[in-house]
Amino acid sequence: MSVQAEVYEICKSARSASRAMMRLTTADKNRVIEAMAVALDERREDIKKANALDLAEAQAAGVKDSLIDRLMLDDKRIDAMIQGVREVAALSDPSGEVVKEYHTPSGLFIRKVRCPIGVIGIIYESRPNVTADAAVLCFKAGNAVILKGGKEAKHSNLVIAEALIAGGVKAGMPEGAVQLISITDRDAVRALVQMTDFVDLVIPRGGESLIRAVTEQAHVPVIKHYKGVCHLYVDRAAVDSVALDIAENAKCQRPGVCNAIETLLVHSEIAARFLPALYSRLLAQGVQFRLDEESMKHFPEGSREKAQLATEADWYEEYLDLIIAVRVVPSVDVAIEHINFYGSHHSDSIISTDEDAVAKFLLEVDSASVYANTSTRFTDGGEFGLGAEIGISTDKLHARGPMGVEELTTSKYVIISDGLVRK
Amino acid sequence: MSVQAEVYEICKSARSASRAMMRLTTADKNRVIEAMAVALDERREDIKKANALDLAEAQAAGVKDSLIDRLMLDDKRIDAMIQGVREVAALSDPSGEVVKEYHTPSGLFIRKVRCPIGVIGIIYESRPNVTADAAVLCFKAGNAVILKGGKEAKHSNLVIAEALIAGGVKAGMPEGAVQLISITDRDAVRALVQMTDFVDLVIPRGGESLIRAVTEQAHVPVIKHYKGVCHLYVDRAAVDSVALDIAENAKCQRPGVCNAIETLLVHSEIAARFLPALYSRLLAQGVQFRLDEESMKHFPEGSREKAQLATEADWYEEYLDLIIAVRVVPSVDVAIEHINFYGSHHSDSIISTDEDAVAKFLLEVDSASVYANTSTRFTDGGEFGLGAEIGISTDKLHARGPMGVEELTTSKYVIISDGLVRK
Repeated sequence: MSVQAEVYEICKSARSASRAMMRLTTADKNRVIEAMAVALDERREDIKKANALDLAEAQAAGVKDSLIDRLMLDDKRIDAMIQGVREVAALSDPSGEVVKEYHTPSGLFIRKVRCPIGVIGIIYESRPNVTADAAVLCFKAGNAVILKGGKEAKHSNLVIAEALIAGGVKAGMPEGAVQLISITDRDAVRALVQMTDFVDLVIPRGGESLIRAVTEQAHVPVIKHYKGVCHLYVDRAAVDSVALDIAENAKCQRPGVCNAIETLLVHSEIAARFLPALYSRLLAQGVQFRLDEESMKHFPEGSREKAQLATEADWYEEYLDLIIAVRVVPSVDVAIEHINFYGSHHSDSIISTDEDAVAKFLLEVDSASVYANTSTRFTDGGEFGLGAEIGISTDKLHARGPMGVEELTTSKYVIISDGLVRK
Repeated sequence: MSVQAEVYEICKSARSASRAMMRLTTADKNRVIEAMAVALDERREDIKKANALDLAEAQAAGVKDSLIDRLMLDDKRIDAMIQGVREVAALSDPSGEVVKEYHTPSGLFIRKVRCPIGVIGIIYESRPNVTADAAVLCFKAGNAVILKGGKEAKHSNLVIAEALIAGGVKAGMPEGAVQLISITDRDAVRALVQMTDFVDLVIPRGGESLIRAVTEQAHVPVIKHYKGVCHLYVDRAAVDSVALDIAENAKCQRPGVCNAIETLLVHSEIAARFLPALYSRLLAQGVQFRLDEESMKHFPEGSREKAQLATEADWYEEYLDLIIAVRVVPSVDVAIEHINFYGSHHSDSIISTDEDAVAKFLLEVDSASVYANTSTRFTDGGEFGLGAEIGISTDKLHARGPMGVEELTTSKYVIISDGLVRK
């Protein structure tokens, strides 16, 4: 069978499963999810064996350590995966919730009701635990899911998906509700994202080239989970200790994640006072610097090898590492312009006690999450109280910011009357 | 300048205007909208002259009457257009509304706030009043709008857009907030829908080929306003008089609109009783029939020239005319399957007094608006109480069904604390 035909059959079967899923109750769905958790536990040794194969292949291919770490599954991580599955069973079920209901003057009774989206494709890289997380969250919202993981985790993904499917089907999950595309051919992604009759939404999670390829090829709707070029703007009315604590937390606590900051902007009026303290604080954490000419003036001579002049490309860069770009700006307006122009519209924060500057920043920064006097590291479904998240949308349509189970539903209008016709 | 470069400049200018618009208050926006209404009135004679030119060109090109009618603007239609603009000023402003707000255990104060989407492209055909309707609704929600009308209305669209822009800018509208792409080259649409840095959303309104072209070329998000292949299912527990009244209303009152029905499905147990009454009622309205073999058996011999056997293609067809397809089905399940398979997920209705059948239909029919004992003709922003609508989304993401001013906004998370960092 050609790649196109194989993907067609998978998508068709997912559509059919999504219809059957409309008839499942919350209890039905939770029973399936619990059975998936049990099945993952039962297949634990197989998962570890498959993972060892992925790791060996990655090492042989000379893959870098940070990627190897993301690939790796040990008992602790498998426990966390199983725990994550059970937490989704505990989430409340958004499907069927009434968003609003009202009577119209013409005599209609209208309800806007949440319902499943239908068939969702998830395209992701490296971390094999996404296979379980994404499948279960989509299923809880009532959707059939088609998983397309990265080739580096293919053995692990396959065993995890087998466990989910076998466990789920035994507990009443419709065939086709969870499927994994195991073809590594790039044409499989193209076929998936053009299957408009069967696929309602595709969510790509990963690097820039993956996102770009999906966006350019897709005929179905896409919600992008794009990079985080996040900013901290330290206003002239900032409290220095707050700014320093947050700069350190947002840059250093976990530099490899999307809600860590990449660029710090500082108001020119406080640059001479604030920057030396910032440099000292971050140098102690091993941070390296990309500085504009103005901020370079305040850099300690003794650490000169830790800093270099920023290029235009630095302002767009997601370092995912202990590197920070710094620029001195003359006003909150220029800070906002910089963030809107160079940023990825993910998470940005202002440090200030000036209410006008804060209000302006929160209104005009065009990002999914805008913060005042708070670390950007809080952008997270769990921290926001959404429960498990499928990821963090950097798009503006349908879902923006952390996407929980509710964002995996749509709504429909249900209209009832006693035989009304339109005049 | 190349088409690409020209569209680039328009989109860049729209992005810049959308930033400036974030600073406009509701009063600012309403003042602009009122100035637009005044300007349309002042340019009334120019609009009529331009429209006469479009009509003459259309007639010379041998365009069919129904299209000529949609193109035509007389004083009454211009009055309605101006009235429509003023109604948008009267709508409440969704931008800035708090969707939810809460404190988290970690000490964050989180608000989810509605805000403008940014830059919206509207691609539409024939009706020149859309130029004013769409521009004003997008503007009210705080968005910059790029209009791309059909070439058949190009003279009318140009004068209407000139009036909106001149009137708006005089009243404080940022330059670039409303723009019309007057290039008729097809490359202009392609350039617009691939301008990911500047355009946040494209809404195509029109025929199948327009929608398909936009969907396949677009790299920016698209919300489709697709055709309406709407169904009426007459259950075995239907009250005949209700079913007949609604069938007549939904088919005949205005057959050229998207919420009119194209196909009637009837339960086999009542076909022999119901169909003769249906035929008699609709034949009196001049309706023609496309019948499956079962429903043909009940068709009156004397009117045989009004009916032909339905082909597979008929079940997909949007007639937009006094033509109806009829099929006899053995159960509500088969009716649901038919609707989900052949329909366009727009508006579908069941006629029944059987609560289980009604509940099943409302749950399982995968359409934007699902009705019980009610005409599908009610699917409309005004009838649903949303005020003016930009159209009716047949997509599931972001907006489904009638799209009002609220659906032209997105949301952002605004997070405040006293210096919190993530543990």
